[in-house]
Order: sequence, then C-alpha cells, then structure tokens
Amino acid sequence: MITGKNYIGNTLSARGQKTYKTINPVLNIENETAFVEANSDEINEAITLAEAAYIKYNQKSGPEKAAFLNAIADEILALDTVLIETYCSESGLPQGRAQGERGRTIGQLRAFAAMIEEGSWIHATIDTGIPDRAPAPKPDLRKMLVPLGPVVVFGASNFPLAFSTAGGDTAAALAAGCPVIVKSHPMHAGTGELVSSAIIKAAKDTGMPNGVFSNLNSSGIEVGQELVQHPKVKAVGFTGSIKGGRALFDIAAKREEPIPVFAEMGSINPVIMLPEALQNRGGALATTYAGSITVGSGQFCTNPGLLLGIQGEGLSNFIQQLSEEIVKIEPSCMLHPNIIGAYEKNKQTAIDQEGLVVAADYGSEVGVNYARQAVVTVKGDTFLQNTTLHHEVFGPFSMVVECENAAQLQEIISNLEGQLTGTIISDNDEIAKYGHVVAALQTRVGRIIFNGVPTGVEVCSAMHHGGPYPASTDSRFTAVGTDSIKRWVRPFSFQDWPDHLLPTELKNANPLGISRSVNNEQTNASI
Amino acid sequence: MITGKNYIGNTLSARGQKTYKTINPVLNIENETAFVEANSDEINEAITLAEAAYIKYNQKSGPEKAAFLNAIADEILALDTVLIETYCSESGLPQGRAQGERGRTIGQLRAFAAMIEEGSWIHATIDTGIPDRAPAPKPDLRKMLVPLGPVVVFGASNFPLAFSTAGGDTAAALAAGCPVIVKSHPMHAGTGELVSSAIIKAAKDTGMPNGVFSNLNSSGIEVGQELVQHPKVKAVGFTGSIKGGRALFDIAAKREEPIPVFAEMGSINPVIMLPEALQNRGGALATTYAGSITVGSGQFCTNPGLLLGIQGEGLSNFIQQLSEEIVKIEPSCMLHPNIIGAYEKNKQTAIDQEGLVVAADYGSEVGVNYARQAVVTVKGDTFLQNTTLHHEVFGPFSMVVECENAAQLQEIISNLEGQLTGTIISDNDEIAKYGHVVAALQTRVGRIIFNGVPTGVEVCSAMHHGGPYPASTDSRFTAVGTDSIKRWVRPFSFQDWPDHLLPTELKNANPLGISRSVNNEQTNASI
Repeated sequence: MITGKNYIGNTLSARGQKTYKTINPVLNIENETAFVEANSDEINEAITLAEAAYIKYNQKSGPEKAAFLNAIADEILALDTVLIETYCSESGLPQGRAQGERGRTIGQLRAFAAMIEEGSWIHATIDTGIPDRAPAPKPDLRKMLVPLGPVVVFGASNFPLAFSTAGGDTAAALAAGCPVIVKSHPMHAGTGELVSSAIIKAAKDTGMPNGVFSNLNSSGIEVGQELVQHPKVKAVGFTGSIKGGRALFDIAAKREEPIPVFAEMGSINPVIMLPEALQNRGGALATTYAGSITVGSGQFCTNPGLLLGIQGEGLSNFIQQLSEEIVKIEPSCMLHPNIIGAYEKNKQTAIDQEGLVVAADYGSEVGVNYARQAVVTVKGDTFLQNTTLHHEVFGPFSMVVECENAAQLQEIISNLEGQLTGTIISDNDEIAKYGHVVAALQTRVGRIIFNGVPTGVEVCSAMHHGGPYPASTDSRFTAVGTDSIKRWVRPFSFQDWPDHLLPTELKNANPLGISRSVNNEQTNASI
Repeated sequence: MITGKNYIGNTLSARGQKTYKTINPVLNIENETAFVEANSDEINEAITLAEAAYIKYNQKSGPEKAAFLNAIADEILALDTVLIETYCSESGLPQGRAQGERGRTIGQLRAFAAMIEEGSWIHATIDTGIPDRAPAPKPDLRKMLVPLGPVVVFGASNFPLAFSTAGGDTAAALAAGCPVIVKSHPMHAGTGELVSSAIIKAAKDTGMPNGVFSNLNSSGIEVGQELVQHPKVKAVGFTGSIKGGRALFDIAAKREEPIPVFAEMGSINPVIMLPEALQNRGGALATTYAGSITVGSGQFCTNPGLLLGIQGEGLSNFIQQLSEEIVKIEPSCMLHPNIIGAYEKNKQTAIDQEGLVVAADYGSEVGVNYARQAVVTVKGDTFLQNTTLHHEVFGPFSMVVECENAAQLQEIISNLEGQLTGTIISDNDEIAKYGHVVAALQTRVGRIIFNGVPTGVEVCSAMHHGGPYPASTDSRFTAVGTDSIKRWVRPFSFQDWPDHLLPTELKNANPLGISRSVNNEQTNASI
C-alpha cells in the first residue's frame, strides 16, 4: 500500500534518483519502503497543477470545500490500523499517542469544515454607498478574505499526523481555498504517503480539481528550498527548528516577490513559580511538572524548559521533589536517532556551562534511542550572563533558575527571547504583587497560562499558538486553532460592484445568512 | 513657530550636524527654516523613550487613547492658516488640496478614536472552559489583539498631512497602542514639525507618557535605516517608491529579530475598458479619465497609468478624445524638483521604447516644476514583450494598450505585477463575457472597481488599500481605512486566567459591552 512515490496531484510519480528509508527508532532498524525524492520536474509539475487548480478550487462553495475536508477525515479514519502501525514504526511513539493524534487531526479537519460551511470566517465587511454625498459620492465598498494562492506546507517531525501531511497547516490552507503542496517529512514518509492517499481519494470523490494537493518526498533541504523559491508559491507553513525556519524565511524574503513564511520554531516556555505556591503545594507541582517535562519525550513545542523561582526553602524543596519525581518516570523513545543525538549533545553542552548543577539525570539503562530526562539548576546571575543557557534543549530537559528576588526575576524575563507560552504558578492573589513580572512576561510570549502547564494546546478559536521571534517568524498569526486560516488569505475589496456579480458572501440579500459588518454594525441581516 | 528641531518625545532637540531646507516648488526657491537632522544619540533616545512609554501607554483605556487622538485632531485644526500656508509652500499643492487633506487627516484620527472608544476592534474571542471534559479538561481561553511595541512611520511625500506625521499610519498605530517615531519627510519638514507640535501638545494635555511620539528630521536614508535596524523597533510603515520600500523591507528581514515592514509602493492601476462601454460613452470616459490621470499632478498611488482596450473603432475614438481632453487641462506643479525630474526622465524612457506612440503631450510653456501630462499608446504584443513598459511613471502619464482580442487582454493582465487597484469599465452585462479577464485581474490587485476611477480612496472599514507585491510588501494589510490598525497588533491568549486579572475586554461581565465571539457566537452579552 505504501509505494514510496510522490503524489504530483492525483498521479503517483517517482522519476528522481535519490532514495531513502524511514527508521523505526524503537527497534533501531530501517523500515522497508524506499522513498524516491521528488526531482525538479516533479516539483514544477506539482506547482503548475496547483496554480491551475487554484482558480477552479475557488469556484467551489464553502459547503463543497467543507465536504472535501470532511471526506479527508473519513478517509484517514478508513486507513485504520495500517496508519496507526506505520505511524508507530516511523516515530517510536506509542499506539495511544497515534490514536490521540489521529483524533486531533480529524478534529481539526472537521473544525475547519464546520467553519467554512457556516461562512462568516471570511469577515465580510460592507460600507454601502452614498451617491448624493457632497462634495463627492461615497462609493459602495465590500471586502472579504480571499486565498493567497498555492502554498507549501512542511511536515513537522514531532506531530506525524496533527502537524504534518493533513495537519493543522494543510487543513487551514485547504479551508482558506489554497492548493497545498506538502514537503513530506523524511522521518515519517510512509505515514505521509498514506495520509496523502486519503487526501487524493477525498479530492477525487468530492470533485476537487487535480493539483489541489500534492505530496513531495524529500530527504534533505533541496526540495524545500526549491519550493520556497518558486515564483508561483505564495506562502509557506513550517514547524521545526529555529535554524530550519529561519533559513526558509531568509529564502522567501530574498525572492523578487517576497512571500510570508509562517514558521513555528523553538521555545523554552518559561514557567514562573511564585513563592507561596511553592510553599503550599510544591510537592503537587513537582509531580505535575515531572509529567509535563517528560510527556512525549519532551518533544512538544510547549515543553516547559525553563522554571523560574525566587531562592528560598520553597524553591529548594521543589527542586528536590521534582528531581525525585522525574526519575521515577520511565524514559521513552525519541522520534529518530538524529533527534536523540541532538538531545544528548545539547543537554551535555548545557551541563558543561559554568555554574550549572545537575539536580536529576535518569541513570538506569535505557533503550538505544530512549531519552534520559534531566533537571538542572542555575543561579539567576549566571543565567543572565550566559545566553547559551537560554537555548532550547529539545527533549525531556528542564532548567530551574534560582533568582535572587523579584527584580532579578523580572530582569530575566525581560531578557528572554520570544516564546510561545509563559506560565504563572500562583497561590490566591500572590500574583498581584508581581504585576511588573507579568507585564514583562506578556511582551515575550503569545499565550499566558495561570496555574497550569504549557503542554496541551487546545484547538479552538481563542487559541493563539505563536509568539515573538524566534518562537515564530510572525507573532501575528497562530499555528493552532481555527484562526490559523488567516495565514493563507488576504482582504479584497469590491467597489461599486453590481450585486449579481458579487461573491455570494457580499450580496445584499446575504443568502448565506452569515455574520457581516454592515456600516460598522455586526449583523446577519440582509441589506 | 517652526524651529527646525526634532521632537525627542516632548523635548525639542537639535544636536546633529547636518542641516537642510525645504523647497517651494511653485517659486522654485528654498524655504527659510534650516532643519537639523537627528543624530544617532537622538534616534536612540527617541526609541528608548518609546519603549518606556509602551507599557504606560497600554495601561490607558480605549476612551483615554481616543481622547488623545481627538485632541491631536483639535490641535491640528488649531494650527489654522500657518499649517495650510506651510503645507502649500513646501508641496506646491493648492490651498484647496491642503484643506481637503487636512479634513481627511482629521477624519482619520476621529474614525480611529471612535473605533477604540467603542472597543470591539480588539477581536475578543472567548472559549469558556469545560473542567469535566474527558479525557482532559478543556481550559478557558480568551484572546484579544495587543500592540506590537514602538513602531516607525515614514512620512510620505505625496500626502504631507494624510499619510505623513499624523496621517493614517500614525493614527492607526497610536490607536493600536504603539508609540510612534516618525521619520519626517524632508520635502515637508516644516509641515511635519507643526503637526508634531500638535501631537505633543495633545499628548501632554491628555496625560500620555513622554515618548509616545517623536519626530525625527532626516534629509537622506541614514536616519531611516538606523531606525529600522534598531532592536527595540517592532514594525515599520512606509509609503513611497518600490526602491525605498524594498530597501527597508530587506533591512528588516535581515535583523536578528525580523519585523514587519508595511510598505505601500508603486502601482499603475490597470483600467480595462470593454468595447461596448467605449462605443457607447467613449467621450464621457475620455473626460473622466483625463481628470483622473491629471488630478494632483498624477501624484496619487491610485493614478490610472495603464488603460487596456481591445483594438477597434471604439478604442481609437477614445484615444483621440482622451488626447484632446487631457491637453485642455492646465498643468500643475509637482511636489519637488526631484519628482518632476524623475517624471520627465521616466516619461522619456517610456516614450523612447520601440513601438510606443505619443498620442498627447502638453506642448505649451509651463512653470519650472510643472508637469506636462501625456498619453501614449502601444500594441498589446509590444507591451507583453517589453516589461519596461510595465513600470510606473509617477506623474500625469497614462499608457493605452491596444489588445488584439480578449485572450491577449487576459494574458496581459496575468503578466502584470501586483497592483493596488484594477478597474473594469463595462456597459450593462458586457462584463459577463469577460469572466476570465476579471478572474485574472482579481489575482493581481487588492481592490476592484466597477465603472469608476481608481483615484479617490475612501477611508472606511471595507476599504482595502494594498495589493500583491510590489504594490505592497504585504498584501494582507491595508494602508487606508480603520482595518489598517491590524498592522500594529498581534493576538494574545490568556489561559485559565482569573476573571479579576483579565483585561476589561475579556472579563465575564463584558463591562464595555463590546461585540465578542463567545464559544463561536458573536455577541455583546456577558458570560
């Protein structure tokens, strides 16, 4: 069922020379299928098909596109055990995680389907004309969101389903009306091909144009670079490292026509643990955070890599309890030998820094690609002076910073790079004494959490998953939740356009009954 | 009253070495005041003040910030004749235009004030929690727009009031909650200083923090470059040439932390004149377009620089009538000797291209900085082959392209660079036969106009003034209208945040009574 070929639109194709295999990190062996990397001809064909599909796809109504997204969800479910098994064999993640992530993927597709079926998301904004206004008539202006054009989505290693082939980026782009070319992630190319087959079947069954979706295999960086440089590509979605995301951003910025790159990159997700909370429930917090640091082998973008407290008995006890709790957790397999390799190296680099104290480091024997979780501590002064300590160690690793006082805590927060999330652990109204700390944190993050953990990113309209650089290349757009559709669209105005030629969403009669701004009033009424 | 100094926050300052004067283009003489360019210390001080003002300014409520914007409008009006006279002496534009543009500037400030006083613009989006959801509780998430931080606004030469010191960009950024540092346009530095004095007075009178606004003089590109490179600057607004806008975009993209540059640049604003319309009312169209091409000496970004028709008697007659009409119009003074110099040069470059025919060129004697309007014609084939003809000639100049047929018309449209606007002139349902042409046009522009002229950009919420590159660096944001506030903000989510600590806009009780999305329903109700 897995062929190792690319999908150039609806056609399976393998005309390139380069092949590669995925790895089962649990068994530490190669999986069977040889995948054929897309060559330049195939890349061009996929983009040419996407451009041709763009206009046709946009003639489809919201409900028609919604049927396509729902059909993708159905077809992914129909892949059943072969998908779950392939996922596990390529990621080393357990079945439960595979099923959970599939549920999230399906849920995202259906959430976008529901949104575009309803239709109000296109932000219809109407200012009716005043032909007899003096000194000049006021024209009739009607604005809505329209899709940017063909877009490229890079599969993310750490979410082989929910942020890869038919993940959040693809679902949002297809919902917006943009044909999608996926640059398949080499570590889960089989999972990617299976999901692609589901998308292609759904596209055919619901009458979508050939080229609305393509899936390109790639083992290195060349395919991605070629895609981002192509003049017909209009936007890019990426989840991964700062180095990778920035490289794509730089390519896109240097194009004759620059295009947006939405890269969701590194984050250490600072957690501020206020003294009374540590005093009153340090033990419970230690258990909770031991779980949050190690969940999914620490391979979530919201992993709490930095815990900040004010020195004292409460913090010392917490460090001890966290250290005890975290080594009780059974280590788990990381996604790929390269990832565990980077984890071990980055962990060691951190540990080697002067002033760093290892509070916990899992010591027993583990499987070959299994990650040993660790907790380290450092004084506030040392952390401020050594920015190497500010860098993410991707994996089940966290650093506790012992600050001298609230002023130093604020100073540290103010000196952090941009982050996806910030968390405050506070008892009762303790937080009221730390207004400046909270204000500083708000300028560094995209989401702020009260008495929780940063891991677990709800898919809903009020989610913002994106922060100041380098958490994201563009803090103004979310990578998770239905508002992520806004990355793939631009506003478009019609001036004095005849009613019968307007898109349905902007017609006087409001045949879709959507919520619109009419002369600055939000209403579902007709005009 | 005009000192020639910079405003570093509330303080007049002139510590730099470089001075320059503005020019009265009508009289072709220098105006009196010597302006002192800001030096690096002054630039740094302005930005440091802006950063400090950022947090304080954000503690101001919507109504408080609205009072500030309204006070700016009042103070600009209070400048009275000195402002109008300075404007005219620095721009060569007539008093009527000065008054009209002042009205537009005041109107913009008051429109943003009204919007932030009401408050719904921050897009409050709430998903209430479900603590007993299985398998995991659903957190409470609440999202709203927050300001990016200190921003830099470049004054535009062609709108010394409405898109300069207190113009659309500044009004939108201040409304959003961003302190503004204006890079004053050297051609109207006196107008800029007067308007700055109005802003500073308004800031003091309404209790706004020092640093919420600064105005920096600059004669060349260095001050602007330094501002865009500064790590504490978080976004940039610019209106001007493609060369200038792209240079700023490139600087911003290369920063360690890239920032958005909203540059509204060149556009030739194609107008498609369908055959029946030309046949039935070519004479009236000629009169209308002679006016649109020459209004403000053709110095509007929406100037119709490209008229497209299908060859035939109707088009030939129109060209003749347009040529006759346009030379009847009295030439007017351009903004600056440099601008008329560029106009004459670019016009000549266009005329020198092979296959170009001059249909009209104002021949009588004109004042020294007055622009001679011209209309040229070219065959569709020639236009397609020579992309030099696709470039803007900034001034009262337009090119009529005689296409062989509808297919060639569509091909030409598809090969155009991105544009701010596209216009269709059509009789009755003639347009129905040109669906492909209209579809092609929609991919190239940000606003499409039916049976009108592109000049005249209404300030309202349904306006989109921004198109695919190089019309703008970012087609997803408008430079005109109240939605331009979206350029200066990012979404921010609060997770499980205690109600009493939430911003007013997100509290359960909805004390402001604003329109919010609550569990995907748009409502003004409380929770």
